[in-house]
Amino acid sequence: MRSPAFVLVRPQMGENIGASARAMWNFGLDRMRLVAPRDGWPNEKAVPLASGAGRVLDQAQLFGTTAEAIADCTHVYGTTARQRDLTKRVITPAEAMAEARDLCAAGKGVAFLFGPERTGLENDDVAQVNTLISVPVNPEFASLNLAQCVLLLGYEWLKTVGDGVLTATPSVVDVDMADHAEINALANHYEARLDEAGFFYPPEKAPGMKTNLRNMWARLPLTRADVQMLHGMLRQLLRPRD
Amino acid sequence: MRSPAFVLVRPQMGENIGASARAMWNFGLDRMRLVAPRDGWPNEKAVPLASGAGRVLDQAQLFGTTAEAIADCTHVYGTTARQRDLTKRVITPAEAMAEARDLCAAGKGVAFLFGPERTGLENDDVAQVNTLISVPVNPEFASLNLAQCVLLLGYEWLKTVGDGVLTATPSVVDVDMADHAEINALANHYEARLDEAGFFYPPEKAPGMKTNLRNMWARLPLTRADVQMLHGMLRQLLRPRD
Repeated sequence: MRSPAFVLVRPQMGENIGASARAMWNFGLDRMRLVAPRDGWPNEKAVPLASGAGRVLDQAQLFGTTAEAIADCTHVYGTTARQRDLTKRVITPAEAMAEARDLCAAGKGVAFLFGPERTGLENDDVAQVNTLISVPVNPEFASLNLAQCVLLLGYEWLKTVGDGVLTATPSVVDVDMADHAEINALANHYEARLDEAGFFYPPEKAPGMKTNLRNMWARLPLTRADVQMLHGMLRQLLRPRD
Repeated sequence: MRSPAFVLVRPQMGENIGASARAMWNFGLDRMRLVAPRDGWPNEKAVPLASGAGRVLDQAQLFGTTAEAIADCTHVYGTTARQRDLTKRVITPAEAMAEARDLCAAGKGVAFLFGPERTGLENDDVAQVNTLISVPVNPEFASLNLAQCVLLLGYEWLKTVGDGVLTATPSVVDVDMADHAEINALANHYEARLDEAGFFYPPEKAPGMKTNLRNMWARLPLTRADVQMLHGMLRQLLRPRD
């Protein structure tokens, strides 16, 4: 599946182009397009900030106008912080990426526009997009920079297409949990030694105390290794000292 | 509703502390805690990067150790990029924030730990968290910096609380769970008595064994009553017999 293009419209600082490349590649995105960068292209200042994501810069495509940069795209999204007078659908990053995933899977050309650092997208650019994306921020303090905005959109992209595939997190299923026979043996071991040590006292409370303790062992998510350790602890604590 | 604390553990560069403050405040988060920042605190270098979010820096609380920084919290999440050998639940930022929202709404103390720039959280810190958070990234290129990680977590927080509707998960929220000061005291109690009993043997394996044990205590969903019982069991087991 072809990933969406991230189009930086008239970016000012080379450093921000580099940081954006790096933010993109963190989430597996490598199709950067540049519209009339202020300081020309290529720009040496972009290189250090892109460290490790140089391939995104090397492959970046340069365009003179926004219209040219999105000419081959059927669906174009614009990121914006300001409220706009233009009547246009506004959705969240997550909603946009769910759409973009389906569009990309269907072979459509999809682009995301990011405006210049100071001003954001101008109305001429906004007029060309199909849909606006509004990133939820603190209404008292909305100061995302360009690379941060790219980062959040990239993150939502990978969340959407990844859905568990890319994060190799050991699921609960993979962990070697103790089975009930092992938990029971552990409970018996502790109960017997505690009984000998006079823990279940007074006698009329002993049954309730034993139930509480068994309930705790059963409720805790103990692994096989935990159970071995808990057996070993008890044995060692009760070993006669030299 | 009180928001979660974001705890920067041994951050190195003041600039990154400033950028993290700004990332937090973008999403309405203002409870920053600092554990032993490398260059001391306050740090002038943090100020320019926090521009506009100075109040987050001004209100930041300083602690000597991770344990002190999370002592009043019942639920602590650790952010990590590396795979860990420690057995611990691993969830996504969105899942973590959905839980954190419910916990905060129920008045629980919630903290998110972020490790030092170069190394991330050390095993000693990871051993103290209840749950790990794994941010989905490109497996070929995972290079999120500290402030970017803070940004993504903050973004998920605002997305979650922005939804407005509180989904009640009584299992996690209503039970009277032990806080980290209590878990820590329990871990200390067992570690001290097991040390005296010669459990941590041979000496070269002792640090790893202690980490494993602390990791187990932190990971288990222990209630206040469980902790009392576990203290009582240990005391009674070691009482001299008649």
